[in-house]
Amino acid sequence: MDGFAAIGTSGGRAERLRMRQGLFTGPTSGLAPGNVQANLVILPKDLANDFLRFAQANPRPCPVLGVTEAGEPHLPMLGEDLDLRTDLPRYRVWRHGELIDEPTDISQLWRDDLVGFAIGCSFSFEEALIENGIEVRHIACGCNVPMYRTNVDCVPAGVFHGKLVVSMRPMRPADAIRAVQITSRFPSVHGAPVHIGLPALIGIKDIAKPDYGDAVPVGEDELPVFWACGVTPQSVIASVKPAFCITHAPGSMLITDLRNARLAAL
Amino acid sequence: MDGFAAIGTSGGRAERLRMRQGLFTGPTSGLAPGNVQANLVILPKDLANDFLRFAQANPRPCPVLGVTEAGEPHLPMLGEDLDLRTDLPRYRVWRHGELIDEPTDISQLWRDDLVGFAIGCSFSFEEALIENGIEVRHIACGCNVPMYRTNVDCVPAGVFHGKLVVSMRPMRPADAIRAVQITSRFPSVHGAPVHIGLPALIGIKDIAKPDYGDAVPVGEDELPVFWACGVTPQSVIASVKPAFCITHAPGSMLITDLRNARLAAL
Repeated sequence: MDGFAAIGTSGGRAERLRMRQGLFTGPTSGLAPGNVQANLVILPKDLANDFLRFAQANPRPCPVLGVTEAGEPHLPMLGEDLDLRTDLPRYRVWRHGELIDEPTDISQLWRDDLVGFAIGCSFSFEEALIENGIEVRHIACGCNVPMYRTNVDCVPAGVFHGKLVVSMRPMRPADAIRAVQITSRFPSVHGAPVHIGLPALIGIKDIAKPDYGDAVPVGEDELPVFWACGVTPQSVIASVKPAFCITHAPGSMLITDLRNARLAAL
Repeated sequence: MDGFAAIGTSGGRAERLRMRQGLFTGPTSGLAPGNVQANLVILPKDLANDFLRFAQANPRPCPVLGVTEAGEPHLPMLGEDLDLRTDLPRYRVWRHGELIDEPTDISQLWRDDLVGFAIGCSFSFEEALIENGIEVRHIACGCNVPMYRTNVDCVPAGVFHGKLVVSMRPMRPADAIRAVQITSRFPSVHGAPVHIGLPALIGIKDIAKPDYGDAVPVGEDELPVFWACGVTPQSVIASVKPAFCITHAPGSMLITDLRNARLAAL
């Protein structure tokens, strides 16, 4: 995808260089404030074609910010000099669905048939929520966002199929309405909520027991608000158990040069 | 207010001429489809100044589409040849808060100090909801929209003060989210919902017992969605009991030449 030709500050590149040099291997939350951070998926070309069709059919959980040519580790539309082999703090390497390594550099694993996908992440819209004075509960609590596997099927494509995973942020009703407005402006980072207020309708039995991440308190005066989650493609890929696959390590995202504000559709 | 220079079809004028000639005296729902219909309030100049400040401070319940000069019964920005004295099917005349007449023409009552206000009405956004395939329950049921007096204070201005009145439309969660998006585009006809899902928080004790209009069923899989309602200014004016005031008769609105679609802010 092009259309994000909005290269921003050099803060993103400075962080990537630190990581490329092996000087930073931790979680990226809070780094290069205002810059877009992205999920990374790297797949062999044959699976990559199916995966791109899957993402196209499921843009809410899989908003693609950039795709490389096969064998090409750079994504210039997302960042000057950006190299997917070295610029993330930590990776996960999967073989046949099994996690076999968590390196800080994948140069030795790179192949001519690999395709990299940068997928939008909720960090971008959470920044916009906070700027609007809306508390993002898991950030206030200092924990992971709670995520739930729903009973909603993604649109299948090729070998890829599975259930939608959602993240949840509890909000008072007026804030929930404002949050719909704010996140609707950001279709490339999950967009508007997919559900609000009635978790059982999407197969969530107990809001206090997320399938991923951490539980957060939901007040009597609050509604749970659900967004399509970038864990969906990871979960879908895991179930396919590809012979070879590389992803970012949880929380250790790809930092781009794009500015969150420039992702706003309007 | 100008800014709505989007005069549309002549359907509005044709309807107004029928009413001017006394050929139609009923409710306007369904007439001149796609045209904006408006609430009408006519007040003496001294009260009108306070009322305009009240409306400015409370744009969600009181979205002003047009205001006349004192003594001027025309609103050319809302319709060619539009005459507030003759062009509504039926009026209500109030003295000291008491309804004293329901004429079909107020030419004999017009005075040099009267100021007319055209105030946006939810008909406009309901059309947009229906075009999006969202059921508007009270329309489907063939009854009035349910309305509730909340415990939320409007911002007072001069003699005008009172509680916010809201209308309610039940929707499934995904439709409620879409309805936030749709109605956010229409700030001049009440805009986004003001509340969703937890009626007790705004002082509504029993959703089955509206204070105005008719109750409608709310499904187990639905949330009540609340919009600021144009009954708010009527209720606020009624409580002030002005010496003299004219409004439209309920359901007998001012039909303008504006197109609903042209009210969309984006």
